[in-house]
Amino acid sequence: MDAAQLTAPAQSTALLTDRYELTMLQAALQSGAARRRSVFEVFTRRLPEGRRYGVTAGTGRVLDAIEAFRFDTPQLDWLSDQGVVDDTTLAWLADYRFGGDVRGYGEGECYFPGSPLMVVEGSFAEAVILETVILSILNYDSAIAAAASRMSAAAGGRPLIEMGARRAHEQAAVSAARAAYVAGFSATSDLQAGFRYGLPTTGTSAHAFTLLHDSERDAFTAQIASMGRGTTLLIDTYDLAEAVRTAIEVAGPELGAVRIDSGDLLMLAHRVRRQLDELGAEKTRITVTSDLDEYAIAALGSAPVDGYGVGTSLVTGSGQPTCAMVYKLVARAASDDPDAPLVPVAKRSAGGKASRGGRKWGARRLDQDGVAEAEVVGTGPVPADLADRLLQVPLITGGTVVGREPLLAARERHLRSRAQLPISATQLSKGEPVIPTDYLIPAEPAL
Amino acid sequence: MDAAQLTAPAQSTALLTDRYELTMLQAALQSGAARRRSVFEVFTRRLPEGRRYGVTAGTGRVLDAIEAFRFDTPQLDWLSDQGVVDDTTLAWLADYRFGGDVRGYGEGECYFPGSPLMVVEGSFAEAVILETVILSILNYDSAIAAAASRMSAAAGGRPLIEMGARRAHEQAAVSAARAAYVAGFSATSDLQAGFRYGLPTTGTSAHAFTLLHDSERDAFTAQIASMGRGTTLLIDTYDLAEAVRTAIEVAGPELGAVRIDSGDLLMLAHRVRRQLDELGAEKTRITVTSDLDEYAIAALGSAPVDGYGVGTSLVTGSGQPTCAMVYKLVARAASDDPDAPLVPVAKRSAGGKASRGGRKWGARRLDQDGVAEAEVVGTGPVPADLADRLLQVPLITGGTVVGREPLLAARERHLRSRAQLPISATQLSKGEPVIPTDYLIPAEPAL
Repeated sequence: MDAAQLTAPAQSTALLTDRYELTMLQAALQSGAARRRSVFEVFTRRLPEGRRYGVTAGTGRVLDAIEAFRFDTPQLDWLSDQGVVDDTTLAWLADYRFGGDVRGYGEGECYFPGSPLMVVEGSFAEAVILETVILSILNYDSAIAAAASRMSAAAGGRPLIEMGARRAHEQAAVSAARAAYVAGFSATSDLQAGFRYGLPTTGTSAHAFTLLHDSERDAFTAQIASMGRGTTLLIDTYDLAEAVRTAIEVAGPELGAVRIDSGDLLMLAHRVRRQLDELGAEKTRITVTSDLDEYAIAALGSAPVDGYGVGTSLVTGSGQPTCAMVYKLVARAASDDPDAPLVPVAKRSAGGKASRGGRKWGARRLDQDGVAEAEVVGTGPVPADLADRLLQVPLITGGTVVGREPLLAARERHLRSRAQLPISATQLSKGEPVIPTDYLIPAEPAL
Repeated sequence: MDAAQLTAPAQSTALLTDRYELTMLQAALQSGAARRRSVFEVFTRRLPEGRRYGVTAGTGRVLDAIEAFRFDTPQLDWLSDQGVVDDTTLAWLADYRFGGDVRGYGEGECYFPGSPLMVVEGSFAEAVILETVILSILNYDSAIAAAASRMSAAAGGRPLIEMGARRAHEQAAVSAARAAYVAGFSATSDLQAGFRYGLPTTGTSAHAFTLLHDSERDAFTAQIASMGRGTTLLIDTYDLAEAVRTAIEVAGPELGAVRIDSGDLLMLAHRVRRQLDELGAEKTRITVTSDLDEYAIAALGSAPVDGYGVGTSLVTGSGQPTCAMVYKLVARAASDDPDAPLVPVAKRSAGGKASRGGRKWGARRLDQDGVAEAEVVGTGPVPADLADRLLQVPLITGGTVVGREPLLAARERHLRSRAQLPISATQLSKGEPVIPTDYLIPAEPAL
């Protein structure tokens, strides 16, 4: 998978941007403030309601998107025609390459309210215009990964197949498959996700294939003839018991698997397992699909089920289709002087949404048993006992991507990070974040 | 906008497909059934919980996607390397061009449970492999349009700006902006949506811009100097009343607009309006943003607000981020004989998800006052009184796109269609579909 993962996409991401980023850029270029060194931070004030932890995902895609953030001629011509920005700004955009630094939580890492998930540092100009695309990616991918993580915890060791492409935007579906893999899914039905990211792809058959043929027997025979006995036959188009009988008659007891896509899956799985066993097909697996979510997966824990296919609920974040991550200026140069020191800044109106200024680090404090007990977010020096618990890693240094990694590394990081949380983290019922966030930020934050 | 809308995208959509479509294709090519003329129907068994009508959206994008559904060499090589399908199937895919017919509800049209939203007819082979990409597009875009329609009804005549890109997958965001426009939004913050679809784009300024400067006054001065007095100043970074005073001092009473992005928007809008009026800025508009949804928009109906910016809630379908549309084989040739007549087919297992066979039309029956009273779904001959109320239009004929239209036409169709529904359609509280679906389908459906 690494080869595909290591290839950056060619398509420009530069217009995946809110118009105000470019008009702010123009105004700041004119006022001179655009040159001020600036620190933007991605964080979230809260987890989605009732969730006990969040999952960082999309980090690798952010790196691809920043590399592909280049304005080409048709884009510049369009911005000019539309009068979005002036010629000075257009010239600046034409030469745009991000030359700053990005640090962030490793992909797959769990996070909590206030975790400084990504820190983007450069001139105001070069950093501000990345806001929209960075947030789009992290907010969507992390929402999917959070749902996927709950599902993979609920599934225990049983394999989960992502098959929600039809219920998500066609391009979002590809990213959803990737994020699900990071959070513990085994495979996807989405071919583009296989092609683009090297994910394992898999599939079974649809009711249409059975209905196309003159009988279920004809359909099963055709599928076995073409795909071999290891295939998965869909058995709920007509009568389930008859379908199982026909399936084993046609394929023999070497049939790979059957899929049940409707009805009371718990009861039906038991019944089908019994029938398969009676027919000597003890090794034929049972895959279930049909509007599964983490609760349904958990409820099937005692059923003789060998794998779950999950669609709608996964690609919509199981009720939480986005995260509330924001991209905030937390520090900037004290003046237009290139050597000016950084000063912390923060919104402080009365209407809520206040934030903490200063460039932050995040660390996970463990108790003596190695179980996480707090997310610690601070500015300035890191206490000695947290020095090896820091969660940010270098992602881009001086404009060069340094943090790209195989997707498998993110997947392993997630499973490791989740395993370190208190055991109630994977409880499915609604609750508070499983560990508190402690702030080590002085009244006048250090930088 | 028409020029942009009329350009098909170059990027191949062929792998935005579930793996089982291609393996079913392989098995059907081998069994010979792949040649059977087949009719697939997109419909939904139910509206999202509590919704009173659905909105068809994404139709134009489906046409683009079908035109771009071509397998290129790297894709074919990958399918071959992965062993997804055999060489016969690869050769078939290499030549793939959809040559069949597509009819469907016009984009923007309202729909109800059972509405035959799109009918795809061709050989099984050419039609089955379009399932995933068609459903992805229609399910996502229609979910966004349904939410947008509720918001535009709630906003009355006030303009709505889509600004949710940061809370959606970066490519989904572009489609969300498009769907929102279809359902009555006026503009978007997403530049790619402007570039790709010709949508009007707009924007204001972020807190970061204010924080970047040494004072709010410096920031306002910089923005006015660069963007002119017609710009929109963001006034809630520090103290609202002071910001309004500063804004008018800097810009004069000709200031275009102010934006409030936090707090009790109802109360603050009144307060800011009063202050602006006292300062002689009677024409300065007030735009509000901050987690608005259709309920918050409705609640601000009496506030002196001139426009709404909507983000998260729009791009996540306001609690319903997808629709439950499915793509089902409803009829196919009785045999492999090329002249065989079509026969209706339908899943009929006990586990729910049963469907009605036969190629269907949909019509909206109006009462004597011209108000919709039923969605009529039938097979066979159309009753005379419904002949001019049919809702499907030709989209692709013999492989050629015939149904492309400017986005404005879809927008107008939506507003017309919604206006024809009973007045309780736009009631925001949960309820049943505002009109029932009547089926005119004999026990043995005609075709």
